[in-house]
Amino acid sequence: MRIRKDRIQKDLEAINAFNGTPGKGVTRFTFSGEYQGALSYVVEELHRIGVECTFVLGGNLRGRLTGLDPSGPGVMMGSHLDTVAHGGRFDGTAGVVAALEAARAIREGALPHRLPIDLVVFAEEEGGRFGWGLLGSSAWSGRITAGQLAHIKDREGVSYLEAMEGAEIKVLDSSTLNSDSLKAMLELHIEQGTILESRNVRIGVVEAIVGIKQVLVTIEGAANHAGTTPMNLRRDAMQGAARIIAAVETVAQQEGMAGMATVGQVICEPGQANVIPGLVRFSVDVRHSDEVRLEAMVAAIAHLAEGISKTRDLRCHIEVKAEAEPVEMSPGICDLIEKVARTEGVEPVRMASGAGHDTGIIAKIADAGMIFVPSKAGRSHCTEEFTKVEDIALGAEILLDTVLELAR
Amino acid sequence: MRIRKDRIQKDLEAINAFNGTPGKGVTRFTFSGEYQGALSYVVEELHRIGVECTFVLGGNLRGRLTGLDPSGPGVMMGSHLDTVAHGGRFDGTAGVVAALEAARAIREGALPHRLPIDLVVFAEEEGGRFGWGLLGSSAWSGRITAGQLAHIKDREGVSYLEAMEGAEIKVLDSSTLNSDSLKAMLELHIEQGTILESRNVRIGVVEAIVGIKQVLVTIEGAANHAGTTPMNLRRDAMQGAARIIAAVETVAQQEGMAGMATVGQVICEPGQANVIPGLVRFSVDVRHSDEVRLEAMVAAIAHLAEGISKTRDLRCHIEVKAEAEPVEMSPGICDLIEKVARTEGVEPVRMASGAGHDTGIIAKIADAGMIFVPSKAGRSHCTEEFTKVEDIALGAEILLDTVLELAR
Repeated sequence: MRIRKDRIQKDLEAINAFNGTPGKGVTRFTFSGEYQGALSYVVEELHRIGVECTFVLGGNLRGRLTGLDPSGPGVMMGSHLDTVAHGGRFDGTAGVVAALEAARAIREGALPHRLPIDLVVFAEEEGGRFGWGLLGSSAWSGRITAGQLAHIKDREGVSYLEAMEGAEIKVLDSSTLNSDSLKAMLELHIEQGTILESRNVRIGVVEAIVGIKQVLVTIEGAANHAGTTPMNLRRDAMQGAARIIAAVETVAQQEGMAGMATVGQVICEPGQANVIPGLVRFSVDVRHSDEVRLEAMVAAIAHLAEGISKTRDLRCHIEVKAEAEPVEMSPGICDLIEKVARTEGVEPVRMASGAGHDTGIIAKIADAGMIFVPSKAGRSHCTEEFTKVEDIALGAEILLDTVLELAR
Repeated sequence: MRIRKDRIQKDLEAINAFNGTPGKGVTRFTFSGEYQGALSYVVEELHRIGVECTFVLGGNLRGRLTGLDPSGPGVMMGSHLDTVAHGGRFDGTAGVVAALEAARAIREGALPHRLPIDLVVFAEEEGGRFGWGLLGSSAWSGRITAGQLAHIKDREGVSYLEAMEGAEIKVLDSSTLNSDSLKAMLELHIEQGTILESRNVRIGVVEAIVGIKQVLVTIEGAANHAGTTPMNLRRDAMQGAARIIAAVETVAQQEGMAGMATVGQVICEPGQANVIPGLVRFSVDVRHSDEVRLEAMVAAIAHLAEGISKTRDLRCHIEVKAEAEPVEMSPGICDLIEKVARTEGVEPVRMASGAGHDTGIIAKIADAGMIFVPSKAGRSHCTEEFTKVEDIALGAEILLDTVLELAR
């Protein structure tokens, strides 16, 4: 192997030493001191192999390995270094270190490629600091403007652009990424689920990133005394909500493995043991890789919520808070990843990604593909998040050959 | 009528002018500046008719109308002046002004009575300041000690005894109330429910105060990514909780009008739209006038909670947070109130009180009775709380004759 797992191990350790909450998971918010530290490590490692780095639109980092045709469209590989609060050591970071090691292998072996190969680190993938994920890739690909970035603020009221300046990130290339400048995007990422582990397969090929619709359901009843209001005269918002929450699960189960629905946030008011709840607000996160089914699930949940509310004399209001359409990866790149994996002796699993990724944003303007490596017990966004360095190294090997093939 | 509703109206207005949250319901926490003001008004009104006031054990106020036998056991009438946060103008206050007007009528008419008649204002009935209700009556009747009062603290860490001193309340009679010193207790209170209104009857006779058991249910599952964890591999604490919450309602409905159960507080963690809930805590408030049925309801809810948790691979823990056994009012006093009401041309409704009252505490040591007057739409503990002054006056008239008969 040209990929060396000892260097991947060292990179993981070095980057995760930049952590705002040592001992309590990894917290590395975009443009924080820890983030600057981790980014500097990557920049220095790239400098060692003679790769120049530039900050591009949105504060993303790009290190370019120029090929025989310096003016051709690039082939990008990379992921992100920001984390959620108290997150794990592999989400995003695994993809950056795999790309870094692939870059080393290319330079060490003087492996030939015609097109430029770019290592990228996307900013604010998680939304941990600014409450809105995939920001760096969205800015770079022109989905959101600099004007919008000036209005997106963190909890302290610091805007995205101010925070970027504060981290001494100077954008030298402010051009928008487009299909002329980009041929393909490849990202290695941890699965964050249990499909690979349960099938005992080390590599997944992502065929699609699921669509997400997050709605906020508000159920309004009447707050009243828990001891003096007979059961048959109540308009208990929590009793209505409980039945709708249970129905959300049923709607998702009817989709088999393809659909998911989660009620993650429940707020019950006034929230006193001796007062009948007058108002309940809860989130419903619905995911499906097929857009028609995604909309059908949301419609079914809305229909059930309204029906249950009506029979209980409650008022029901449903508001869409966030949505992302499903994204398909390039079939050609999926086939290529699979072919390369087989040369490494692995028969990969084709799967959908239940989580969003920057590559889903980039897929709108160029061919894109993702390589998944297994997550232990599917745990992610927590201290228990774990992926074997051997699996990251295998994924990096496949990433390397796929990128070289695309940049040939 | 010897009772004058214009004076009751004036008393209500004067007392409710002492309010910490004008325009946003009445907030008059025990031993606050507003509480001192309201108490001073009552003391001054009693002084006008020559009634001396004393603070007794627990910081309760007692105004004594001495009868022909000053050493005989007393007959008490009264209620409380403290409120919940943003509460109503009648809960407690209606009973105090009814007793005050009854005292005026006794003095003005020189109505004869052998035993002492005491007007009482109980402290901290609601638990709005110290988080624990019926404190004044519990202290006076010896159910809790001065040592315990020194340890019960408000949100700012001020103890009950310190707060009492701060309000310049000096306890001159620190004897415990007992069956030798007390013959009977009468309390007029707003119903806080809809039984009287729905039957179009102006007076209720309370036969029992329901027993209450409040439990905290904790459901533990596993927090995980909402997009990468298949539905069949989830241990979603909220999905389990939703089904238990729905079952709580069913258990109560099976008791007909006699039982009630309410889930008023629900906390869902980590509480993010894209994370499967790993932990849910919710309160269950169970009430029944029959102690055996009360225990059976709690047992049924616990059984269902454990069964639902088991089938979903969740852990379930149930903790009793508060309990009060059901209390029966004196049948003799109930009959007496009914007889007196009939002389006023009213056929009262016999009913249970779904809310707790100081009279339930006093009922352990002496004969006790309660007179209910209607609450508009059953609303209570809110700005909409309303009872007609005519109904309070009618209740005060019945209170007056009942007390005179008991003190004869």
